[in-house]
Amino acid sequence: MGLTIGVDIGGTKIAAGVVDEQGAILDTCQVPTPPTPEGVVEAIAHAVKTVGSGSSAEAVGIGAAGYVDDKRATVLFAPNIYWRREALKDKVEQRVGMPVVVENDANAAAWGEYRFGAGAGHDDVICVTLGTGIGGGIIVGGRLYRGRFGVAGEFGHVRVVPDGLLCGCGSQGCWEQYASGRALVRYARQRATATPEAAEVLLGLGDGTPEGIEGKHVSAAARRGDKVAVDSFRELARWAGAGLADLASLFDPAAFIVGGGVSDEGDLVLEPIRKSFRRWLVGGRYRPHAQVLAAQLGGRAGLVGAADLARQG
Amino acid sequence: MGLTIGVDIGGTKIAAGVVDEQGAILDTCQVPTPPTPEGVVEAIAHAVKTVGSGSSAEAVGIGAAGYVDDKRATVLFAPNIYWRREALKDKVEQRVGMPVVVENDANAAAWGEYRFGAGAGHDDVICVTLGTGIGGGIIVGGRLYRGRFGVAGEFGHVRVVPDGLLCGCGSQGCWEQYASGRALVRYARQRATATPEAAEVLLGLGDGTPEGIEGKHVSAAARRGDKVAVDSFRELARWAGAGLADLASLFDPAAFIVGGGVSDEGDLVLEPIRKSFRRWLVGGRYRPHAQVLAAQLGGRAGLVGAADLARQG
Amino acid sequence: MGLTIGVDIGGTKIAAGVVDEQGAILDTCQVPTPPTPEGVVEAIAHAVKTVGSGSSAEAVGIGAAGYVDDKRATVLFAPNIYWRREALKDKVEQRVGMPVVVENDANAAAWGEYRFGAGAGHDDVICVTLGTGIGGGIIVGGRLYRGRFGVAGEFGHVRVVPDGLLCGCGSQGCWEQYASGRALVRYARQRATATPEAAEVLLGLGDGTPEGIEGKHVSAAARRGDKVAVDSFRELARWAGAGLADLASLFDPAAFIVGGGVSDEGDLVLEPIRKSFRRWLVGGRYRPHAQVLAAQLGGRAGLVGAADLARQG
Amino acid sequence: MGLTIGVDIGGTKIAAGVVDEQGAILDTCQVPTPPTPEGVVEAIAHAVKTVGSGSSAEAVGIGAAGYVDDKRATVLFAPNIYWRREALKDKVEQRVGMPVVVENDANAAAWGEYRFGAGAGHDDVICVTLGTGIGGGIIVGGRLYRGRFGVAGEFGHVRVVPDGLLCGCGSQGCWEQYASGRALVRYARQRATATPEAAEVLLGLGDGTPEGIEGKHVSAAARRGDKVAVDSFRELARWAGAGLADLASLFDPAAFIVGGGVSDEGDLVLEPIRKSFRRWLVGGRYRPHAQVLAAQLGGRAGLVGAADLARQG
Repeated sequence: MGLTIGVDIGGTKIAAGVVDEQGAILDTCQVPTPPTPEGVVEAIAHAVKTVGSGSSAEAVGIGAAGYVDDKRATVLFAPNIYWRREALKDKVEQRVGMPVVVENDANAAAWGEYRFGAGAGHDDVICVTLGTGIGGGIIVGGRLYRGRFGVAGEFGHVRVVPDGLLCGCGSQGCWEQYASGRALVRYARQRATATPEAAEVLLGLGDGTPEGIEGKHVSAAARRGDKVAVDSFRELARWAGAGLADLASLFDPAAFIVGGGVSDEGDLVLEPIRKSFRRWLVGGRYRPHAQVLAAQLGGRAGLVGAADLARQG
Repeated sequence: MGLTIGVDIGGTKIAAGVVDEQGAILDTCQVPTPPTPEGVVEAIAHAVKTVGSGSSAEAVGIGAAGYVDDKRATVLFAPNIYWRREALKDKVEQRVGMPVVVENDANAAAWGEYRFGAGAGHDDVICVTLGTGIGGGIIVGGRLYRGRFGVAGEFGHVRVVPDGLLCGCGSQGCWEQYASGRALVRYARQRATATPEAAEVLLGLGDGTPEGIEGKHVSAAARRGDKVAVDSFRELARWAGAGLADLASLFDPAAFIVGGGVSDEGDLVLEPIRKSFRRWLVGGRYRPHAQVLAAQLGGRAGLVGAADLARQG
Repeated sequence: MGLTIGVDIGGTKIAAGVVDEQGAILDTCQVPTPPTPEGVVEAIAHAVKTVGSGSSAEAVGIGAAGYVDDKRATVLFAPNIYWRREALKDKVEQRVGMPVVVENDANAAAWGEYRFGAGAGHDDVICVTLGTGIGGGIIVGGRLYRGRFGVAGEFGHVRVVPDGLLCGCGSQGCWEQYASGRALVRYARQRATATPEAAEVLLGLGDGTPEGIEGKHVSAAARRGDKVAVDSFRELARWAGAGLADLASLFDPAAFIVGGGVSDEGDLVLEPIRKSFRRWLVGGRYRPHAQVLAAQLGGRAGLVGAADLARQG
Repeated sequence: MGLTIGVDIGGTKIAAGVVDEQGAILDTCQVPTPPTPEGVVEAIAHAVKTVGSGSSAEAVGIGAAGYVDDKRATVLFAPNIYWRREALKDKVEQRVGMPVVVENDANAAAWGEYRFGAGAGHDDVICVTLGTGIGGGIIVGGRLYRGRFGVAGEFGHVRVVPDGLLCGCGSQGCWEQYASGRALVRYARQRATATPEAAEVLLGLGDGTPEGIEGKHVSAAARRGDKVAVDSFRELARWAGAGLADLASLFDPAAFIVGGGVSDEGDLVLEPIRKSFRRWLVGGRYRPHAQVLAAQLGGRAGLVGAADLARQG
């Protein structure tokens, strides 16, 4: 199969793109994300038809947040769109006249990185996306590992603190409450409240109040050496690295690929993560260490990965 | 291949057995575990030759505690025997004249349960052995999942309490400090110290002091309704169930098989584990639940599994 | 001094009462709590004048949630009413023409229990109010201990879980997130969601959904043996008792007095609290144990205590 | 009363000294600590008589590790010497012919700092001794606060991590496991094991191995900028500062005095402790902050404080 179409459903926009066998995006189309579940289906179909018209694309891969069933057809549950047992594959196929594969968005991104990004050359990689939340994808022996019911790789909701922070999922102490971009902002706000004199750069980038601090401010301030921003990244890194060490005990991958907005800062955040990973890696003296790599595809990973999964069929 | 020999290396004895294609043990031989690393190699060879003489066994599978490399040949590290990069496969092959496969003992036990015990009928199962420590084995798509370097499935050393109890592995807060048989005894001793009047049965089974309480006493007392013993099992079950819920977020198996001494109590401990599992399972309303099953092979699982892995080659 | 007036400022109503030297309430008056800070001051004055007219009351004691300064005159911060450095003493004195003492409400309640309730006969008692949140009061050598700046005894905001639940105070892991009435409801809802079949009584008392469970339902269901309700009380008791053990390490009181809505259940909750207290009490074999007593004055403690503090001057 | 004698019982030596009303030590005497409980009593008496002969000292104050009863006469329990309900006051009085006061050693040190050291000018101070373990002393209204049974101020055994590290006291997660000198060494060893290249200075000061790292090495290396040593101090400071914030919620003192070996490093450790204290102080924007001061008397505090307590009678 040659060209396929990948679809990435975000909170504010839906992107569709024609992708070739080398993972290059040849053409794209974006539409706003409609507010209703049914509207989203229509918008997906519209974007696919728009970008696909005139191309020779033969299949569609859709990356969606939430649980996707073992047949890669039904979204069992989506956290942002109100989909409950939504037969997304069938509905889109009827509208676009091409075979459709639905996949969890973090799985799709992991596949993209594995095939065309940082994972090239490894057959056993774990992708961790540190964004607003934390997503994960598992490649085992060169194949995407989905679990028995399709919902493996939900790294963000592993409990890392008993009786810890409430999570949107209903549980407590989930990893994404401590190592995601949202956690980074919380660390920065708490610290800036307590010691504003150590957060001058950081506070100056926002509206001057701790509540006005956003993720982009923390990154910019950290690059300029702001103490609170740097310490906030270190705190995130402690949790992120310890979590990777746990994943190594479980999956023993050749490499971790760290993506998501947090990873855009490169070694500013990856180096402390590696340090924490080594500190908490069990048996580290007696086993080969997985590499901790930065993702390479940025925001394109999900779309490219979804398209390639459609190609694999 | 027909008959093979399985070997189980324990702290006090080494067992070898001839196993047929249905997982039945036809003949066994036990020898004491020697104190030196080299002595253990000799003892394994001796036991294999003793039990194998006169049989038509064609291969040997050895289950060993510790890290076994990706070629299933070298023990990278063993916690109890002083093996560091021990070429166990080669050494035993030279002595017994048959092909040898080395496997982590919990992996071997998992394979045994998968093939001939509680896992029959499922292709994606997670085995958790709650013994003195906690061991784990992962079956994915009907194959043992070993990770890139051979050391996947070390469930017992996932950190479940940040800054938690010191573990023999050098880390802190490892799951096996909270959900193993050793943890059960600690719970019982702490509780019996604080409220001896609620531990009359339990204390009566040992020497009357909290320090004299052993695992078998807790089980026996719990069956007789001793409050401290029952509460100790509940405490263990809270940790065990929460840990299974995390494993479900990660691996999404069809079933968990719970083995090890703790599981000998059956529903006395499995029911509270299931309850805790359901409490902490993320997204439990929107996804199929893995079953939580009791292991069926007991102490034979490792030997039978190792023998079968040798058969698979 | 003979009669004094005590005032208790609640979220929905303000109560004033004339109290005699034995702690008996001779007359009371209630008014709704106004929505504005200034309105509350007026309402307090109105209630005091109403109940005081015709009595020979000579002084007023006001119990207010929040931080009260070391002069017992200014509310530095109130969580519910928007008071910031509110000169409550002066404002009320101007309006009622009597000397006024302002005190933290939990301190006032502690004083009430010490003087006329469960604390009688002890000179060193710690009062813990397990209500929606957790309040505390400390009696040392027969005197209310207020700290250097007036804000001692904020037990509810001691951190018992690092990186734990967010608290309204801006911190994380505060004790009141784990051992208050609100925590009890959270435990019950989580458990009823996971195992509704074990919460039949409990769910039947509300609207049938976990979200519909309220504190009173948990109490009623626990008295009827509902498993989820009983387990929820046990979970709360584990945290409450461990917290008392910590307070014993710090303050070494003769007795703890446990009040607040949670304590209304008496031994249903106090017995498990005592058990947990004994389990976690450090050095318990080598030191006298503080008693753990149920409060006796119920909701009157704050008003009676405030009135008595006014009498002491 | 003019001169008195203070006694400090250490693990390796017993020091006695004649102390004047300004806290100056006029004369001292040291003897090795005998191995038997009864031997320690004799050694105390011997040291007191030696240093006291020829002086006009009129009373003796003894600081002893462990629980001292409410009459300041009996050691209920000592962790290092095998004293269980040891009538130390009577035994020493019989031998030296002077009135004797026995006090917990951390209480004595706190009193010394309050009277002649960092606490001068404050009537409500909390002393925290970060040594091998953590000791504490509480001054309320210019008086030593001992609790109802004499054992208040055991800060080191407050639980700061549920299910945390085992403590010698039999409990888990005690503060002294995270913020003492022993904890500092553990942090340094863990970090040096994981990232030896970041601990070159530190490892060079000992025998080159992580296990060879001692407290004095961490201090020396931190002063020379060794990354692992500096990070280890920061980790300790996080726990120490958070603990002080909790003590502020409870006791609301005017000042904290931080003593013990860890505090010898001055601002190297006190500044990060203050930062962490401010981060975790509840309601910090609405209340006066306690100062965090370095102790001034060093190892003399206990002896001087014990002598002064004897003077107070």
